[in-house]
Order: sequence, then C-alpha cells, then structure tokens
Amino acid sequence: MLHILKVLFLIGSGAAAQVITSQGTHGSYLTMQLGSALGAVFGIFVARGVSGAQLNVVWSMSLWLLGRQPWRKVPLYALSHLLGAFLGAATVYLQYYDAIQVFSGGHLSVAGPNATAGIFCSYPADHLSVWGGIVDQVVATALLLICCLAVEDRRQGLLPDGLAPVLVGALILTIGLSMGSNCGFPLNPARDLGPRLFTFIAGWGEEVFKAGGGWWWVPIVAPFVGGLLGTLIYELLIEVHHPHTPQSPGQESEAVELEEVVVDSGNNR
Amino acid sequence: MLHILKVLFLIGSGAAAQVITSQGTHGSYLTMQLGSALGAVFGIFVARGVSGAQLNVVWSMSLWLLGRQPWRKVPLYALSHLLGAFLGAATVYLQYYDAIQVFSGGHLSVAGPNATAGIFCSYPADHLSVWGGIVDQVVATALLLICCLAVEDRRQGLLPDGLAPVLVGALILTIGLSMGSNCGFPLNPARDLGPRLFTFIAGWGEEVFKAGGGWWWVPIVAPFVGGLLGTLIYELLIEVHHPHTPQSPGQESEAVELEEVVVDSGNNR
Amino acid sequence: MLHILKVLFLIGSGAAAQVITSQGTHGSYLTMQLGSALGAVFGIFVARGVSGAQLNVVWSMSLWLLGRQPWRKVPLYALSHLLGAFLGAATVYLQYYDAIQVFSGGHLSVAGPNATAGIFCSYPADHLSVWGGIVDQVVATALLLICCLAVEDRRQGLLPDGLAPVLVGALILTIGLSMGSNCGFPLNPARDLGPRLFTFIAGWGEEVFKAGGGWWWVPIVAPFVGGLLGTLIYELLIEVHHPHTPQSPGQESEAVELEEVVVDSGNNR
Amino acid sequence: MLHILKVLFLIGSGAAAQVITSQGTHGSYLTMQLGSALGAVFGIFVARGVSGAQLNVVWSMSLWLLGRQPWRKVPLYALSHLLGAFLGAATVYLQYYDAIQVFSGGHLSVAGPNATAGIFCSYPADHLSVWGGIVDQVVATALLLICCLAVEDRRQGLLPDGLAPVLVGALILTIGLSMGSNCGFPLNPARDLGPRLFTFIAGWGEEVFKAGGGWWWVPIVAPFVGGLLGTLIYELLIEVHHPHTPQSPGQESEAVELEEVVVDSGNNR
Repeated sequence: MLHILKVLFLIGSGAAAQVITSQGTHGSYLTMQLGSALGAVFGIFVARGVSGAQLNVVWSMSLWLLGRQPWRKVPLYALSHLLGAFLGAATVYLQYYDAIQVFSGGHLSVAGPNATAGIFCSYPADHLSVWGGIVDQVVATALLLICCLAVEDRRQGLLPDGLAPVLVGALILTIGLSMGSNCGFPLNPARDLGPRLFTFIAGWGEEVFKAGGGWWWVPIVAPFVGGLLGTLIYELLIEVHHPHTPQSPGQESEAVELEEVVVDSGNNR
Repeated sequence: MLHILKVLFLIGSGAAAQVITSQGTHGSYLTMQLGSALGAVFGIFVARGVSGAQLNVVWSMSLWLLGRQPWRKVPLYALSHLLGAFLGAATVYLQYYDAIQVFSGGHLSVAGPNATAGIFCSYPADHLSVWGGIVDQVVATALLLICCLAVEDRRQGLLPDGLAPVLVGALILTIGLSMGSNCGFPLNPARDLGPRLFTFIAGWGEEVFKAGGGWWWVPIVAPFVGGLLGTLIYELLIEVHHPHTPQSPGQESEAVELEEVVVDSGNNR
Repeated sequence: MLHILKVLFLIGSGAAAQVITSQGTHGSYLTMQLGSALGAVFGIFVARGVSGAQLNVVWSMSLWLLGRQPWRKVPLYALSHLLGAFLGAATVYLQYYDAIQVFSGGHLSVAGPNATAGIFCSYPADHLSVWGGIVDQVVATALLLICCLAVEDRRQGLLPDGLAPVLVGALILTIGLSMGSNCGFPLNPARDLGPRLFTFIAGWGEEVFKAGGGWWWVPIVAPFVGGLLGTLIYELLIEVHHPHTPQSPGQESEAVELEEVVVDSGNNR
Repeated sequence: MLHILKVLFLIGSGAAAQVITSQGTHGSYLTMQLGSALGAVFGIFVARGVSGAQLNVVWSMSLWLLGRQPWRKVPLYALSHLLGAFLGAATVYLQYYDAIQVFSGGHLSVAGPNATAGIFCSYPADHLSVWGGIVDQVVATALLLICCLAVEDRRQGLLPDGLAPVLVGALILTIGLSMGSNCGFPLNPARDLGPRLFTFIAGWGEEVFKAGGGWWWVPIVAPFVGGLLGTLIYELLIEVHHPHTPQSPGQESEAVELEEVVVDSGNNR
C-alpha cells in the first residue's frame, strides 16, 4: 500500500520540482499536471495486483460507505498513505537537493519568488478565501468520486484490462486542468499532510502550517465532505435511472464482486 | 441526462476559468481544449450506462433523422441539456467566485481586457463576420457528425468497450485545435444557450445577447444546419461505397441495434 | 477515397490556419502537429470500413510492391487523394476566409511576416538546401513506412480494433515533433500538391511553385524514394529475423489476408 | 535488435535537434519528451515480434537476474544497442546537417549558447554535483524498472495486445517530465554512450568526455545500480503481498512464460 503513494508522489511532485527549480525551462503548468496524472497511472499499475489500488483515503471511505469493504481498512490505508507520501517527499528532496539549494539560495521558504514548499504540498492562491477553498475542494472531490465510480461501474460497460488506470490518470489531469488554479487540487488528505510534515521537519519550519491563514486543514477535511457528496450524487443518479434494479442485497453483493474485479484485479488469479 | 452536460460543462468551462483568471500562468490554449475534450469523455462515462450519452441535441436530431430514436426524445434532451448546462455554469461561478472577483475587479464584463463572459459561452473573434461564423459552425458541426457516425458505425469495426468515449473526446479536441479560433467552436446549442442565460441573470446583463452584433443565435441555429449536412454526407458516403447493402428495413433495424449497443451501452445488461 | 484526404486535410490544415492567423494566441507548434495527427486518425475512422484507409499514395505503392494490391489501384488513389486535398484546401480557405483576409491585409503571400501559403502546403525553412530537403523527406518517409508496416504486421501481435488508426496518428505526431522543422514533414505527395494547386488558383499565384528554389517537386518525388527504402528495410529486417518462415506464396497470401483485416477492416462483415 | 535503438534514437534525438536548432519555434520541452516517449513506443512496435523488444540493457540485466533469460544475451544486446544508437546519431546528424551548421555557425560545441552536443547525449545541468547525478539516475532507473515490471506482470492483469508498448512510452514521458531537469534522464547506458562516441568522432571532440567534470561514466554506471535496486524493490514488494504464492520453481517458470508472451510476443505465432 505504502508503495502506491510513494510512486505517485515521487512522480507528481518531481514534475513540480523540475518546473519550479528550472524556472520553467524544463516544463510548464501542463507538464506538472501530466506528471501528477501519470504518477497516479503508474502508482495504480504497481499496486493493483497485490493489494488493490486505493490511492486516496476518500475513495476508501466511499467504498466502505457503499458496503464494499470493512471500515477497518480505511484508517489502515490512511496511515499507510501518510507514511508513503512522507517517504516520497523525502526521496524527491534527495533527488532535487542540488537544484533546490541553488534555486532557493539555501533558504527553504514557503512564500516569495524563491519559494519551494509548493513542490511538496498545496497552498492557496492569493485570491482564495478559506470558504472559497472549501467550496473548491468539495466540488473537485465530488467530481473525482462521481467519475471514478462511473469508470468502475460494471453496469456501465466492461472495460478492457488496463484501461481503468489510464482513465483515472486522465481524470486527475482533467481536474488539474480545470480546477487547479485556486489551490492546486490536493483532493487527497494523506498525500497533502505527509509531505507537509516532511517539509515541517526538513527545514521549512512551522510556516508550512501557518501559511494561507492556516490553510493546512482544508485539504484534509474538505475532500471527505466532497467524497461523501460525490458518492451520494452518483448513487442517486443511478437510482433515478435504474428504477427496476432495486439496491437489494443481491445487487450489493454484485457490487462487491465488481469492486474486487476492477480495483483489486489480479489478486486472486 | 441533466448530469452529463453538467459534468461536461463543469470541466470544460472550469478549464477556461482557470486559464483566464490566472492570466495564463495556470494553463494555455491547449489546456482549455484538453479540458473541453476530457469533460466530454467523463460526461459520457458518467451517463453512458443509464440513459445513453447523447451530449449534443444535434446528435439527438441526427439519430432521429436516421430512424434510430423517436422524435419525442429530441426536445426532452434539449431541455435537460439546457438545465444541466445552466447548473454547470452556476457551479463554475461558485467555484471560481473569488478568482473572478479579483480578476475582473468586481465588474462582470463581456468585452475588454478583464472580460469574463468568455468563460461561460462563445463569442466571435473580432475578425469574424456573421456569415463567416455561420460557415464556421456549419463546417465544424458537419465534421463532428461525420466522425461521430463513423466511430459508432459497427460496419466499420467493433471497438473495445470504453474506446468510443475516448475517441469522441479526441474528436472534440481535434475540432478545438483546428476550428476554434473563429468563435470557440460552440457546436452545441444547449451548452451555449444555458450558460448564456446564467450569465445574463448572474450580473453580466443583456450585453451577453448584444455582443458580437447579436451573435447569440448563431451557435443555436448553425449547428443544426451543420448536423443535417454531416448526416447527409455520411449517409451518401456510405451509400456510394456499399452498393450491395441496400438501406432496407432489415438494414435499419441493424442500425437501431448498433445504436443501442454503442450509445446506450450497458443499459439493458 | 476522396473523403479521407478531405477530412485529414480539413483538420490538419485548419490547425495551422488557426495558429498562424491568431498569431499564436490560439495554439502552438504542438497543437498544429496534434491537429495533423488527429486529422489522420479521424480520416482513417471515416474511411476504414468502406474502401480501405490508404491515406498516402506512398503507402499504396508499398502495398503494391509487397503484392498486397494490384498496381491499378495506385494511380486511382493518387488522383482521388489529389482531388480530396484540393477540396479540403478550398474548405479551409472558406472557413478561415475572414481570418486570412484580416491577418494578411488582403494580400495573399508565400513569404514574409504575413505569409499564409504555409497553411496549405510545405515550404522549406531558410536553412535547408535542396539536398537537405531530399534527405529529410527520404528519412522521414522511410521511418513512416517501417513503423506503419510494423503496426499492421499480424506476426507482431493482433491489436484490438481501433488501436491501429490511433497508432498511425501517434506516428504522424511523432514525425511532426522530431522531423518537422526542416520542411514541415509533407510525406504525402497528393496532400502537398493538391493544396498547392488550390493556392496557385486562389490568388497566391505562381510564387507557390517558385518559392524555396523551386521546392514543389521535392515533397512529390522524395517520399516515393523514402517509401521504397522503408519497405525494403522492413522486409530485410523481417527476413533476417524470420529465417524459418520463407517468403513463399503461402506466406504472401497470409499477408494479403492480414492487409484486408487490418486496413480494409469491416468491409466484408 | 540494432534497429530498435536506431528507431528510438532517430525519433527521440530528432525531437531535440528540432527544438534546439529552431530555437524553440518548432517545439518545447514537452515536445522533446513526447518525442523520446513515442520513439520508444515505435521502437518496440518495430521489434517486438522478431527478437523481443528489450530497448535498455538495464532491463536485459534485470530479466537475467530474475532468471528469465540467459546471461549471454546481456552483452549481446549491449553491443547491438551501442551500434544502433551510434548509427541513429549518424542519421540524425545527416538529417539535421544544414540546421546544425546554420545554428552553430559551423562550430560544433558542447557548452555555450550555440551548443549542439546535447542533441545526442546527456550532460548535467550547472547546479548538479556528481553525487547528485548518481542519486538522480539511481532513483529514475529504479522507478523505470519497478513500473516496467509492474506493467509486464501477468499476475497484475492481462493487458490487451499493443497496450504495453504504449504504457512503456507513457512511463518514459513520465520520467522525462518529473526527473529530466537534473541531467536529461539518460537511463540507458548504450543509448548514451553510442551517440557520445559518434559526436567524439564527428567533430565535437574530446570535450564530450571532459564536460560536466567527466560526466560521461555516470549514465553508464548509475542506471545499473538503479536497475538492480528497482528489481529488488519490486520483488520484495510482491513477496510481501503474496505470502501464499511462494517463489517456487513453478512460479518462476510461469514468470518465464509471461516474459515470452509480453516482451517477445508474436515471435512464435
């Protein structure tokens, strides 16, 4: 489990490190988003066969709410993700050590022209209020959940093996391109908090928690609200359009099977 | 039905909001078009299994003309799309409220350096005459229909599940990259009118209808002409090359089946 | 047949028209190449089921050389392509009439800051000698043929339906990104000559044939040399590694079958 | 074998030549990385059916370590790749001869504003120490191996034919976008040394070995360390999560079969 988030973070955050420390000569806003998206794709490919590829604790919560996995798995995944993202941040710092030292002049700062904290976790844009940030993250995570549930819904069609991870990557690119300018679309509590803790320890100091008017808790709380909303909307949307297929126990057990096939695919082969 | 257009609009228009309000630091022309394309992809994935994924009323009209669905569905879809696009616009405005306020200085305008109306619906470029806009939209919608009919034509080959939505997204990207500079390739009457009504109410005022020499009706009327033309061209193109497969009743019923399989896929599983 | 090239040209050339006449605000070098690539993808999808999707007469020649189609088809395709590309150019001119008039100030020129002839067909960069252009086109067309033959070679694996057209598009993007700066990678005699004839008639005048030191014949002759070279290299490459599968009549008839399945797929279903 | 690296190099390096000699008008950092990625995709498609598509000697070493091929193949591939990359570099130089002469003013240099050696092989960025370069290449090659092993692991799911080469290309793009700014992600000893030897002979002189504080050996040695590390991590990661499937001889022979199916696919059809 730990490894998914590490791969995801290593790639996604490396893409940001590259663009920021090269001052835009080695990439652009698009390449950063492509990095995040492709990091998710390969994170899933690395882990999908061994322990399921739940790369966001909000998604784990949603599967629990839908009765597709026991609640005990949720905190387990959360802790594992937190550790994976922390180690991923440490690896990115190691790989970009020279570049970050030269770019920042040796002063690790959270804001200003030579800020490097944005490589590791999210900070709000200057224009964003706290309420605006909460709305942004609720809308974005709700959209993430609706589309993920749709892609994995066997009633909607049976995708060829390997297409679902690519579509999840495309979805993350989509959100990055359409909902990334307010606060960098964290979407993922553990992926945001783990690296924030790393930068706190590694020399950026307590400013990582104070910045943006105490921003740090928004990407932890708001995605759960958005995930809950998205799961509800998708279920209602399906309910409305499937009047003749009641959510009976039989239906649910089919959903469980589906989940195992699509998300934990290959585990029992 | 309502939800397809909402997802589509939320993503596509969010991508425009992001680029415009960040003044190009968080995206480019390409990322806006990718946003529109990926919005369509996930719009289709969300809705393809429950009620068909007709995301453009011109496409609905074409299917009716080809005898693949009753005419009653066409106005139903049109109304549903109009409402979905209106709600999508409201959500984008909510999510980008802070950014739009700061960028526009609180003055919601249709033209000028701080114009924000272009986030929501189409306006013609300065060089474009009304006739030029009509030609542009007729050509672009005809191309859209020809290629969509080709992708969904089972006689051309049987695509793996999940590829058709991706190809439709690629097609929208294609048109955005090759036919987007004249008037932003609206192509879709309801997707253009719904958000225009929202901006009319939300504070941009009657300028949204007056701008571009009363441009607003062109993206409503011209796509129907283009859709009709595209459907005719594709049918003739097929007729010319399939001399031995007459458009008999049997042929038509095969086409109806095809439609159900590809567009309404999963509905009856 | 006519329609493939028309769709291909309409999209690819429209993407160039958009970038040039918007002076780079509505696209970039990458979007032009994406346009060319996606134009090929949808050109193939439109025509693959009815009459084969041979969108380059050099490819038709190669299939004839390999004994997979009679020689009579080659000039037939060439003429059809020439006409299709001519009509495609006319449609692009119609759609971008306003934009071209405003950008060029009403003066249709082949060179200089307001040149618009490059929208329609290839001209060499200033640094390129005629021999350099011939080498460039021979290398690029040879690569095109080697990769197309590999993608369609059933001995290399059986691709899912719909993947081959996407790969051909990716190949054209590839060549555009790696071999496009010398002379715009024409690769395709009919696609280059048809629009050149259109611009000759439509007002750009005889300069379209005189420019670049009489460049016009290079993209007509060199691709045939490169296509021949690429076909030979691929056959030798296969021969060397398949010592136990002699190119017997049986082998050839298998190749013919393959061709029908992959290129003319769907025709006989 | 020789041909894989040649195709790969011709495309990847051509994309760099295009961007550098056009001074950025015909591409960007993203197009160079796309070129490298697509070069790998078509390199694999050209060679996958005839002799396996091992395009990196580090990958060959990993397959030997996992007992999936005899050690004798490793030096054979290394030599073949070296020659292929050398010939690829010669072809790129031939194709871009005019452009390189004009851009460099006839003086082939390794550093400075008109440097052209970076078209052919890797040089470290100014900020990078030798240790930083080693860390960068170890991390990047380890990631490459982990993800390649995951994509090809049949226990993780059975991909449709033709998807694996595309995913390998996406992986190379990923690494280019997230780990390319330190030293250009060589990752591949033969692909780096072959062209370096070509530039040494062709007129860039001994500076190609002296530059970057004697950088040349890092991209030869560090990828092997990273490859070893990546192979170990993936095996441990699988071992930890597959407690009930011991790495017995039977397991191994399954792995060998897998290898033949995925990498050498089509050879024995």
